[in-house]
Amino acid sequence: MTGKGNEIRIFDTTLRDGEQSPGVSLSAAEKVEIARILARMGVDVIEAGFPAASRADRAAVERVAREVGSDGGRDVPTICALARATDADIDVAWDVVREAEHPRIHTFLAASDLHLEHKLRITRDEALERTAAAVARAKRYCDDVQFSPEDASRAEAGFLCQMVIAAVEAGATTINIPDTVGYRTPEEFGALIERIVGCLPSGQDIVVSVHCHNDLGVATANTLAGLRAGARQAEVTINGIGERAGNAALEEVVMTLRTRHAYYGLSTRIDAARIAHASRTVSHYTGMPVQPNKAIVGANAFAHESGIHQDGMLKHQGTYEIMRPESIGLADSSFVLGKHSGRHAFAEHVASLGYELDADRLEAAFRRFKELTGKKREVSDADVEAMIADLVQRSDDAYRLVDLQVVAGSPGLSTATARLVGPDEAERVYASVGTGPVDAIYRAIDSIVGVPNRLEEFRIHAVTEGIDAQGAVSVRISSADAPMRIGGYGTDADILIASAHAYINALNRLVEVRAARAERTGAGGGSTPAGKR
Amino acid sequence: MTGKGNEIRIFDTTLRDGEQSPGVSLSAAEKVEIARILARMGVDVIEAGFPAASRADRAAVERVAREVGSDGGRDVPTICALARATDADIDVAWDVVREAEHPRIHTFLAASDLHLEHKLRITRDEALERTAAAVARAKRYCDDVQFSPEDASRAEAGFLCQMVIAAVEAGATTINIPDTVGYRTPEEFGALIERIVGCLPSGQDIVVSVHCHNDLGVATANTLAGLRAGARQAEVTINGIGERAGNAALEEVVMTLRTRHAYYGLSTRIDAARIAHASRTVSHYTGMPVQPNKAIVGANAFAHESGIHQDGMLKHQGTYEIMRPESIGLADSSFVLGKHSGRHAFAEHVASLGYELDADRLEAAFRRFKELTGKKREVSDADVEAMIADLVQRSDDAYRLVDLQVVAGSPGLSTATARLVGPDEAERVYASVGTGPVDAIYRAIDSIVGVPNRLEEFRIHAVTEGIDAQGAVSVRISSADAPMRIGGYGTDADILIASAHAYINALNRLVEVRAARAERTGAGGGSTPAGKR
Repeated sequence: MTGKGNEIRIFDTTLRDGEQSPGVSLSAAEKVEIARILARMGVDVIEAGFPAASRADRAAVERVAREVGSDGGRDVPTICALARATDADIDVAWDVVREAEHPRIHTFLAASDLHLEHKLRITRDEALERTAAAVARAKRYCDDVQFSPEDASRAEAGFLCQMVIAAVEAGATTINIPDTVGYRTPEEFGALIERIVGCLPSGQDIVVSVHCHNDLGVATANTLAGLRAGARQAEVTINGIGERAGNAALEEVVMTLRTRHAYYGLSTRIDAARIAHASRTVSHYTGMPVQPNKAIVGANAFAHESGIHQDGMLKHQGTYEIMRPESIGLADSSFVLGKHSGRHAFAEHVASLGYELDADRLEAAFRRFKELTGKKREVSDADVEAMIADLVQRSDDAYRLVDLQVVAGSPGLSTATARLVGPDEAERVYASVGTGPVDAIYRAIDSIVGVPNRLEEFRIHAVTEGIDAQGAVSVRISSADAPMRIGGYGTDADILIASAHAYINALNRLVEVRAARAERTGAGGGSTPAGKR
Repeated sequence: MTGKGNEIRIFDTTLRDGEQSPGVSLSAAEKVEIARILARMGVDVIEAGFPAASRADRAAVERVAREVGSDGGRDVPTICALARATDADIDVAWDVVREAEHPRIHTFLAASDLHLEHKLRITRDEALERTAAAVARAKRYCDDVQFSPEDASRAEAGFLCQMVIAAVEAGATTINIPDTVGYRTPEEFGALIERIVGCLPSGQDIVVSVHCHNDLGVATANTLAGLRAGARQAEVTINGIGERAGNAALEEVVMTLRTRHAYYGLSTRIDAARIAHASRTVSHYTGMPVQPNKAIVGANAFAHESGIHQDGMLKHQGTYEIMRPESIGLADSSFVLGKHSGRHAFAEHVASLGYELDADRLEAAFRRFKELTGKKREVSDADVEAMIADLVQRSDDAYRLVDLQVVAGSPGLSTATARLVGPDEAERVYASVGTGPVDAIYRAIDSIVGVPNRLEEFRIHAVTEGIDAQGAVSVRISSADAPMRIGGYGTDADILIASAHAYINALNRLVEVRAARAERTGAGGGSTPAGKR
């Protein structure tokens, strides 16, 4: 484990803070896939979830700890679980990360008076006691304990130092300073980190960490200012996703340290050439699109439009380019698969992208790949990623699409007929009209599945270029039965079929959430007649 | 005009640098609509384009100068045109902005040795001479002259100061320091601006400006650092669009200055409550989506997902929120139109959003609004904005969609039949099969229009929530006949019809570009048989 000197630990919280992005809900299988990509990329610490939040979170963190955090290699990343400063949270956090080769418990407690008074309704003294007690309890389980004073950037500085010292004395080895509401400027945040570094007891091996939110658009600058001021761990997410406007983006922090190495003198263990793949995968699984003008990973980040810029680039690449697209894995000559690529070439290529598929899924992926080569001449990495995302997401579905027929156009009503297989393996067919083809399809599917919900968001984008590109559809639905919006994802060369898959995918998740809720409350779920309870 | 003391001039370059975003191409009508919104919002200077780049750019800047820059009000914004440091560029820039009440010429020349040696192939002394000559020529036309030393942030500081002094001595009143390639850190950029402010001749009323690119993700932080160091103009774009990873975002700079007024002590004239509307309009017209985790204007920027955050928010809004959504115009109780809203209520609401539609377009918009109320219960601001964007973009189309029929589904081939009216007012019908419905539609349209092109990008998103939401489709096509990608846009409750509109919209623009090119080169265009030339 690095983290001192000039080496910066990259602590990725895509699976925890990133998954708290409104509308995002990752399955355990998806979390494992993303964690594999992060591990392969060289991330030092993976925060895999907040186990006390739900049974699904517990199961997912446990799988990440077992399947990604303990595969025997020396370079296996630390797997971290978040816990409030309570015994119950810390116990369950330990329970799910203990199988990791390098487990970490990350506990937190509010530090600002605003949070202490209004949210927790405790005094500063009580907060110090709870901090010490929580860290000590975590330390009984695990050497590697991280403590975060929540809303640190709005806390009174003297009290913040007291809290940090209490955590260190109780055994915390990493102190993370979050700008929870994204309020600070880079100058202020740098000064805060300098102060925290200064108040730590000397002679101990404590790493200061930064966790910056992007509400004012300066999360990356704040993170860099914190690192300059002495922090040696950066909490980041792929594509900068996270609560509200998100977190500092891994790709921006890593590529700035790399591009401006002479200025910062700091380095990370990240294999930057894996950034583009990680960005696309996280975008597929979370359904969070990346805008074209996103730094580093946006579709336009390396495109030069104006005549003056194009002319300059032809004369000297340095005129308008400070990074090469290849450095983040955007190769001009990316390996492209075609009609004649065999099973072996396909399997090798999928493995080189960082996927570890079992034989069944590999076979399913290969079948879809062959289908796709019948529809388009060249299949790119982005196509393969979208296909695999679709397969990973559809592994254990209660409802599956068998057939779909649509008649649409102007003027007149759109009509869709859908045939689905249900959890009882029986096929059901339903036809419906709608204001458009997607509306008709969704009404037909609704009639079969019968779970009340509301479509909140619907997005399609082409996975690659060309008229024969696959369409990737993301939807979000909400329901009185689910505490948050539920996402669904589908890809197909036909956007109507992709739309159907995405909606069915979301409904399958909703069915699971309802079942889990029914089990937990003993209420029997929506299908149990109330009179029988 | 403000700009000294603690007041920051907002110089919006959405129509110039923003329009240089790869794939974006705004028509004159769209530029005028966006300029109106910027003016109403309180932008001090609108950079309307780069007139020397093309005849279309000249026409657009001229219309913005006449229709937005000279409507007689005292608060009319300055209209600025960009020009290289050549007589021809400066002459044409003046020619198109002269009708504005407050015209500005913005001329630029490379300042870094890399650009001087490799792009321009001139010496530093020649650069100084050209700077002075260009500014002097602009000054003959116009009091308000801005000079930018291009790639200033990588120039040798001593030479940069010489160049700035040469420009000021020749009459420049604003000196803009661009971080052209987005290379600098906030600390470095702040120090650079401090140095520039220090080397300006005293006693003159010179405004220093900053123009930051987002390649490393720190454009907003660099802009703020520049303002703290003494710059009094910020060059920004709506949604941060622009070359590559874009520019500093207007909304981030403005809302940071506002939210952190006690820290910066700086203010702008921007009416922040118009930010959300401006953001959506620019996104519609440019086809550049805004990612959900974009600061200030992203769909998630004010959404709170985790249980802990929601609980905190219920107890005290300040726990997790530093800005109110209303402050940028995201009202909870936004005025919603319905089935029973009449022509007058509709017209008033459209005007309150900042649109100035002539009677024909207002009537067309009202007809579409009534159609939409037949399909969905409530029509929101976002619906109205999408509808108007669609109308503005389809004003002078050569080809128009009359009818569309689609049969699609799995398994089997998709079939589309399209009927279009062409420039000769004759109707043509064509049917085609495809790998999916959009593919089939686009092939049928291609057969009618007959202009070779390649579909580069295809995106759909729902304009609002609910299963009956309108779909907004953006496409980009490329062609050997056009120097850049051409965008198209369409909305409809039926995404297949919206897809057809978007593609036809892009083809109409391509037809225009081809015609303009044919006229310019005298080559007669693609339809002239080669043998007859």
